[in-house]
Amino acid sequence: MLLCDIGNTSYHFLSQSESFKKDVKSFDASEVKHKVYYISVNKDVDISLKNLANWVDISTHLDKAKYYETMGVDRMMALEAIEGGIILDAGSAITVDVKRDGVFEGGFIYPGLKTMSESYKNISSALAYEFNFDIDLRGLPKNSQDAITYGYLKTLYCEVMSHKMEIILTGGDANLFAKIFKEARVDEHLVFKGMKRVISDL
Amino acid sequence: MLLCDIGNTSYHFLSQSESFKKDVKSFDASEVKHKVYYISVNKDVDISLKNLANWVDISTHLDKAKYYETMGVDRMMALEAIEGGIILDAGSAITVDVKRDGVFEGGFIYPGLKTMSESYKNISSALAYEFNFDIDLRGLPKNSQDAITYGYLKTLYCEVMSHKMEIILTGGDANLFAKIFKEARVDEHLVFKGMKRVISDL
Repeated sequence: MLLCDIGNTSYHFLSQSESFKKDVKSFDASEVKHKVYYISVNKDVDISLKNLANWVDISTHLDKAKYYETMGVDRMMALEAIEGGIILDAGSAITVDVKRDGVFEGGFIYPGLKTMSESYKNISSALAYEFNFDIDLRGLPKNSQDAITYGYLKTLYCEVMSHKMEIILTGGDANLFAKIFKEARVDEHLVFKGMKRVISDL
Repeated sequence: MLLCDIGNTSYHFLSQSESFKKDVKSFDASEVKHKVYYISVNKDVDISLKNLANWVDISTHLDKAKYYETMGVDRMMALEAIEGGIILDAGSAITVDVKRDGVFEGGFIYPGLKTMSESYKNISSALAYEFNFDIDLRGLPKNSQDAITYGYLKTLYCEVMSHKMEIILTGGDANLFAKIFKEARVDEHLVFKGMKRVISDL
């Protein structure tokens, strides 16, 4: 079974236990001849896939009433994989979603690493630093690199920790964020796990 | 006495108790014939002002050893105005600085309103919303506009509140942020107050 989670920048495939990515801009989905169960938050890709019979959009089999209308289907699928906890999906955007006793409580969206880094650079060349993921967030910074790193990461950390729930990290930058969220569990295949649950109900 | 605080986007003047702004791109500083006491975080402007005898850079009279080398002088001046508290200066960047019993403890930098709004738009057109400053941050969002608003503001709010100190808001967006930081005091002239203190010591 081939699964695919399509985001703003890439097709993320899972074949057996092996996952791989293809760039949205260059990948030709019609070259895939196997049956693919997919979800997509990328509207342009979604439209093009409607013409390919072997690409099956499983989002239509999800009970979306549990979530909200404009919510990304990848967030819903990750939530389908757990009974409770706080999911931090670190991709081009960071989505943070809370589920308690099987019920979705809400979530928020924060800029991903690349976007946030560019934001600081656009404000001033004096803020053109890479983020320091080895930062100690317990004390307030006294240098520019840590001042933007703390601004980006401590604010997020503070909010996420305030929920006092198990944290599950997923998405392309999950392992990097695990350096900050030391208490968290990394599960790179959380969205795929949710997709499998939905498929098993078909 | 004419004071001027020069940022990345504007000259901010104070004449008596009246303040006004001029765009960095279009304003010609040589047209001002009065003596101006100024500070600048804008390197290009700073260089051009060195040739104008009536523009006096007062940052040279500040004891910068109390702060850190690459720190913006506007942040230092705002801190000079208080003995203790947490200052949130909401401009093109948001700077947050903590001073306790007369000693600077450190600070961080967060993207300003316009930059952050553009960041979300650049990630996806699905996130192209204005921020909702009337949001209730007590519960997790279940719609896209509040999901990005909460991502931007609740994270910042959580971190700032964790210091349990008096909050002073300043900068061009101070009144807007006062809708979120309801406990805070707004002082639009905090940087000027610090500048006056430094000048009074000359």
